Amino acid sequence: MQISVILAPPHPGSFNHATADEVAALLLKSGHTVTVHDLYREQFDPLLPYNEIPRDAALPPEIALHCREIAAADGIVFVHPDWWGMPPAIMKGWIDRVLRPGVAYRFAETDPGEGIPVGILAVKAALVFNTSNTPVEREQEAFGDPLERIWKDCIISFCGVPLFHRRMFSVVVTSTE
Amino acid sequence: MQISVILAPPHPGSFNHATADEVAALLLKSGHTVTVHDLYREQFDPLLPYNEIPRDAALPPEIALHCREIAAADGIVFVHPDWWGMPPAIMKGWIDRVLRPGVAYRFAETDPGEGIPVGILAVKAALVFNTSNTPVEREQEAFGDPLERIWKDCIISFCGVPLFHRRMFSVVVTSTE
Repeated sequence: MQISVILAPPHPGSFNHATADEVAALLLKSGHTVTVHDLYREQFDPLLPYNEIPRDAALPPEIALHCREIAAADGIVFVHPDWWGMPPAIMKGWIDRVLRPGVAYRFAETDPGEGIPVGILAVKAALVFNTSNTPVEREQEAFGDPLERIWKDCIISFCGVPLFHRRMFSVVVTSTE
Repeated sequence: MQISVILAPPHPGSFNHATADEVAALLLKSGHTVTVHDLYREQFDPLLPYNEIPRDAALPPEIALHCREIAAADGIVFVHPDWWGMPPAIMKGWIDRVLRPGVAYRFAETDPGEGIPVGILAVKAALVFNTSNTPVEREQEAFGDPLERIWKDCIISFCGVPLFHRRMFSVVVTSTE
């Protein structure tokens, strides 16, 4: 299987990096092919420009490459810290630019864009690993853990991926080695 | 009153721009001072680097300016399209970089960072205007409208702002002039 790991903490040596390294090592050991994208290290440009929005837009080479890779993936793993109930901007931009119409979803032929899109990613399973400095109970009560619905319903299920699992690690800032 | 309007659609002439223009005109007419930040036009850099995370970090001039302005604001208005249940990456990055510890919230002196932060924005009221191409019923049922909790609970209330109102305009893509 071809697995993409997308990673968005701002510094090497983070718990997120250790998680991604462990995931990649386990996948390789199980015989899978793994591609890791450390978005900060790659200096991924997260700004979706207006001329990239149309379905048939010409894409910059680095975006076209990300799109081809994710269209060919059997599995995908996202690893990121929870910042304001969302991924860091760099991963938000990966979502904005790579999960495009024609790559991740499409509208029916007869539909000018107002209907219900159909997910077309071939990915069979998606994993999300998050880190947080908010205790579990406060996350649920004060914030409602918006990342769960964002990943599960707004992104993974929307793109047609049947299996989803997410794990939040917290509280990281006061955790022991 | 000093009001900041933060705007994040990728192209001039959008419904978001028209909304921000109307908001700014009404506020000016009512005697307020208004500053509008069109983040795409300003080419705002949304990537929070690791060395900017500490509370006493040295900030680039443009980020320091945004921080001073938001610390001095009486009101704030966010205008953005709903992309994947979140703001576009450029506005996510404004949140990541400008709503900093010491500007938007703080921890108690005795607290190494694991406690409950206290919101310290002087802003008295926050408005959020969103555009979407998802019908209202489907937004609630399929996605749970994560932007409501993100803005209301994860950001506005977290930063100590007492009044919040949000309005979603949809479906925009098939709407008439």
